[in-house]
Amino acid sequence: MASSSNSAPPNHKFDPNFTRNVINATGPKASPRIRQVIGSAIQHLHDWARENEITVDEWMSGLELINEAGRMSNDRRNEGQLVCDVLGLESLVDEITYKLATSAADAPTATAILGPFWRADAPKRAMGETIVHGIEGGDHTLMHGVVTDYLTGAPVEGAELDVWHTAPNGLYEQQDPDQPDMNLRGRFTTGKDGRYSFYCLRPTSYPIPFDGPAGTLLQLLDRHPMRPAHIHFIVKAPGYKPIITQIFDRADKHITDDAVFAVKDSLIVDFKPLQGNDRAQFELPYNFRLATYDEAKGNDLKGATPASTAV
Amino acid sequence: MASSSNSAPPNHKFDPNFTRNVINATGPKASPRIRQVIGSAIQHLHDWARENEITVDEWMSGLELINEAGRMSNDRRNEGQLVCDVLGLESLVDEITYKLATSAADAPTATAILGPFWRADAPKRAMGETIVHGIEGGDHTLMHGVVTDYLTGAPVEGAELDVWHTAPNGLYEQQDPDQPDMNLRGRFTTGKDGRYSFYCLRPTSYPIPFDGPAGTLLQLLDRHPMRPAHIHFIVKAPGYKPIITQIFDRADKHITDDAVFAVKDSLIVDFKPLQGNDRAQFELPYNFRLATYDEAKGNDLKGATPASTAV
Repeated sequence: MASSSNSAPPNHKFDPNFTRNVINATGPKASPRIRQVIGSAIQHLHDWARENEITVDEWMSGLELINEAGRMSNDRRNEGQLVCDVLGLESLVDEITYKLATSAADAPTATAILGPFWRADAPKRAMGETIVHGIEGGDHTLMHGVVTDYLTGAPVEGAELDVWHTAPNGLYEQQDPDQPDMNLRGRFTTGKDGRYSFYCLRPTSYPIPFDGPAGTLLQLLDRHPMRPAHIHFIVKAPGYKPIITQIFDRADKHITDDAVFAVKDSLIVDFKPLQGNDRAQFELPYNFRLATYDEAKGNDLKGATPASTAV
Repeated sequence: MASSSNSAPPNHKFDPNFTRNVINATGPKASPRIRQVIGSAIQHLHDWARENEITVDEWMSGLELINEAGRMSNDRRNEGQLVCDVLGLESLVDEITYKLATSAADAPTATAILGPFWRADAPKRAMGETIVHGIEGGDHTLMHGVVTDYLTGAPVEGAELDVWHTAPNGLYEQQDPDQPDMNLRGRFTTGKDGRYSFYCLRPTSYPIPFDGPAGTLLQLLDRHPMRPAHIHFIVKAPGYKPIITQIFDRADKHITDDAVFAVKDSLIVDFKPLQGNDRAQFELPYNFRLATYDEAKGNDLKGATPASTAV
């Protein structure tokens, strides 16, 4: 029970045994990892409440925001994830999960958050095809490059690039009834040379959805909801650790203040004007470097598979 | 942007600037309280993630649990609140909100958590009536006492006791289609003598609902879902700070390991066998001591009104 504070040091304002009692209620059959992670969460949660003297009303307001995020979440939108993103948590666990012990310049391609808009089973397309359908305008871009083994430099055969980005109106296709299903998404598989190419749009910056709790939080924090223009990728190949990442347009005015804190220096790219191609006005060369499971293991590269992070 | 870690101390494993960058994104128009409370929450959340090296998969599992709690929450059930309760958070913010600077033995009645089962507009009943309807069996109890001003000892006129407890099957009426609406609930208002009395049941211990995320959490922590038998009260009177509390049956075997950590020594009571009353087998005398707003202010007694903590 939460005992009275007989054993409290004289200046201790709140029951000094309470948090230990809650943590110690954990039973002997809890897994060591659960005991550690949830025990630590209880300690931080309680320390936060005491340090800031959180009142019942404040706790209830925060709880209602979190409950509402859950209520809004479905297979097309994950508002709880968006709340985490605004607080920097997804970018942080991404860093923690994929951190390489090495800081070698030739490391595998850096990762960035999955975000809430990935969809499984994007259409498989032939190399060189476009992912743009039913869209007026936009800066068409030829993106191309090679997927290599980061240690040997050898091209990776059978690498699948799963790509997705927003339309010029700032909406992903599942947010926008006017776009064809699976628009601006595609999966491309490399041949022996490891090379890939496809047509997409030069993406636009856009606001994350701010009609729910994440928007409320941004408003309370006096922050904008804009993300710098970016293209999402999951790159995977047999025997290699999958990489979830995003690349960002250096010219975007929000490149230094992403609402979800996902930008990393090595993921900033330059779109180049393209001449003599009637299908595209820009070119974007970009290479992906993958690590095998053994290479990743040697470098403390932990990671989640895309399937298990599906939302 | 989340910059590379050029300025990292040599042994710092993760970007040492990241959390500061996220907190510093807060704009100038954020209220000082929001800046403090959410800034501190970001710091604790990030520290927790780094200290435990939380992976993307683990974060996603936790997030799905929290989203599911929101989806289950409606006007009859607040699963997010239940998750907080299991982690001791509601009892802690209750302590923080109502803590008296004084440790005087004649302090106002101690508080306990509201819990998720309070309903507004319980029926007003005449003094001495029963709140038990359509229930077979159970140990009928005559509860009675006086509501006083904690400083002067004077009886408080016009004090409303809002009472609720579970049926012998361990269910509150809104969880149980077989109970009449508003069963085992009632509001009683004191006259000039400050006295109250009503018939209720000697309550039974019961499990908190464990068919949702709170139950998942209890299972992961190898904990039981039982609460010791208790009766809930909100006591309010014109000019006095409302008190939200619970009283607990000393004979209950879960008196020392409440699943939601709400028991306080001063709220443990003894049910006494009652002779010569054909309406009840037990008697429970209990007095409530209220503080006026001025008295409460003088003692650092902060508090939420019941209306604003409604769920």
